[in-house]
Amino acid sequence: MNPNTRFLHALRREPVDATPIWLMRQAGRYMPEYRALRAQHSMLECIKTPDLATEITFQPLHAFDVDAAIVFADILTLPEAMGMELEFVSGTGPVFHNPIRHVNDLDRLRPLDVSSDLHFTLQTIQQVVDGLGGRLPLIGFSGAPFTLACYMIEGSGSRHFIHAKTFMTNQSQTWHRFMSCLAAAVADYLVAQIDAGAQAVQLFDSWAGILSPSDYSDYVAPHTRAVIAQVKAVHADVPIIHFGTETSTLLSTIADCGPDGVGVDWRIPINDAWRVIGYDRAIQGNLDPVTLFAPVPVIEQQAQRILDAVGKRPGHIFNLGHGVLPETPPDHVAALIDFVHRYTAQST
Amino acid sequence: MNPNTRFLHALRREPVDATPIWLMRQAGRYMPEYRALRAQHSMLECIKTPDLATEITFQPLHAFDVDAAIVFADILTLPEAMGMELEFVSGTGPVFHNPIRHVNDLDRLRPLDVSSDLHFTLQTIQQVVDGLGGRLPLIGFSGAPFTLACYMIEGSGSRHFIHAKTFMTNQSQTWHRFMSCLAAAVADYLVAQIDAGAQAVQLFDSWAGILSPSDYSDYVAPHTRAVIAQVKAVHADVPIIHFGTETSTLLSTIADCGPDGVGVDWRIPINDAWRVIGYDRAIQGNLDPVTLFAPVPVIEQQAQRILDAVGKRPGHIFNLGHGVLPETPPDHVAALIDFVHRYTAQST
Repeated sequence: MNPNTRFLHALRREPVDATPIWLMRQAGRYMPEYRALRAQHSMLECIKTPDLATEITFQPLHAFDVDAAIVFADILTLPEAMGMELEFVSGTGPVFHNPIRHVNDLDRLRPLDVSSDLHFTLQTIQQVVDGLGGRLPLIGFSGAPFTLACYMIEGSGSRHFIHAKTFMTNQSQTWHRFMSCLAAAVADYLVAQIDAGAQAVQLFDSWAGILSPSDYSDYVAPHTRAVIAQVKAVHADVPIIHFGTETSTLLSTIADCGPDGVGVDWRIPINDAWRVIGYDRAIQGNLDPVTLFAPVPVIEQQAQRILDAVGKRPGHIFNLGHGVLPETPPDHVAALIDFVHRYTAQST
Repeated sequence: MNPNTRFLHALRREPVDATPIWLMRQAGRYMPEYRALRAQHSMLECIKTPDLATEITFQPLHAFDVDAAIVFADILTLPEAMGMELEFVSGTGPVFHNPIRHVNDLDRLRPLDVSSDLHFTLQTIQQVVDGLGGRLPLIGFSGAPFTLACYMIEGSGSRHFIHAKTFMTNQSQTWHRFMSCLAAAVADYLVAQIDAGAQAVQLFDSWAGILSPSDYSDYVAPHTRAVIAQVKAVHADVPIIHFGTETSTLLSTIADCGPDGVGVDWRIPINDAWRVIGYDRAIQGNLDPVTLFAPVPVIEQQAQRILDAVGKRPGHIFNLGHGVLPETPPDHVAALIDFVHRYTAQST
């Protein structure tokens, strides 16, 4: 089987010759070649220069036998294009200098014009697809409305998300207006990425798990559903993956939003998660990223536990439960990928 | 019904005249009287001076109609007594300057002599019980072995707990030896608190939720079970509450460890949690602490959702899903407590 088709077949729950694997943040600081490039260029320069973003997208493809590429980009360029002042502060992470706190702050937001505002990522996608020449599929992505809203309201990462949650409950009409506006922008962005050549897209709602199930249903799910419906209305056949962390109790609601596949973190046994999500969806996950710091036999044992729990049901894409951590040993990444392919090829 | 008995009756799943409520960190920075005292005394000074710790324990009892007192103490004085160099760094939180990283580091640990090493907390308990004169029950507490081990290995709070998880998987024999040693110390500490007058104890395993269910079962649950068994061997009739956050997928394993009550965070509907835990245990929780920043009608609506989900089954103790946050408005705390009493008294 052409590796190109393995990831897409699994996402459509069709039989594959070996379980496909890719890793969130597979291009990143744990790779020496990435660090070398970042020593010369800032984060935003790397994202906004298609030649650099293309080179970074290819770095893990040259180093490892992954089954999909994911465009090197960042979820925060979309809010930036809408008028948020974005800076990547060394040691702190991304910061918005003008957070959204009141209804009037929404007036500052500009409607997104994807083809010009986020041209750099669309061009990167075209270049990567050209460079791949059909050897591997390319995944596009966006932050989901909720995680983007949290960043825009808090202005940065947060421990308790007091501003975001308080905005949600105390100004709920404004919240829904804000989320609708983000949902439309996210859908436009994903459609444009597919138009540019992405063969699947992933919606990152990394922070969904800070909410209670009832708050998630009331304040978030309708807008995630809207994004998926809007993308499907244009590209019915392109699979959409939803990913979040700490979503164990939100999975049935997430599945109801309509994604083709659901990414889960390590906090839930993958077979339990799949039963809740429904076997009419693909599942992606779910090794704890910290496991990659363990010796290779422990990594293999933990990966095997996941693969054995899944069994022979088609529709599993192996991944971590969150992004690769910066200090991860690259040879452990290679060992994981080889093990997943070897173990599942033997058993098919 | 004497308020003294309301909390203990609920913990034994006996009928009560109104749902009891207390709040984790009910004595803390959100109270002006606490901040006034902390302006003059350091955190460790407050904990280690029984008169100060007693005064702080009483502050929320004077301000609010809570149904239990909890001794003002900190989970990290136990590791400190075993030889860890503890400092509360302003803005950062607690830090151990000599983290445990290798098997040899365990040699640095001293066996705990509770009655002298942690005398200050035992004396505080005696003073609080005297001061209460039977008006309210007093809860004692300790960190659970896992959360203590995480702090001792990481040296501070952590985002990914790489050192702790790697220690666990890469030096698993040493890990189990370390956890056994902590379990014995924690059990001694809880027994001594009960001897000093605590009428119930809570085991805080705040960080249990960073683990996958299989890692929790393999590396943590046996030691939590040992703590509970050791305390029960001495004080069979004193109820033990287990608390952790992000434990939605760990609850059946936690219940198997033998606590009389289980505290859960807001990530799971309380009736779902109770079904998993089993109706032979009490349940405690589970309002999102950030809800206290919302207007009072929203707080009441969210509290009512929890109370309605529980229904009339005896055995619910109302609490937040984690500690009161520092910026919480005290009058919102008062409103929540009054609402829980009023709403459940009406409906009984």
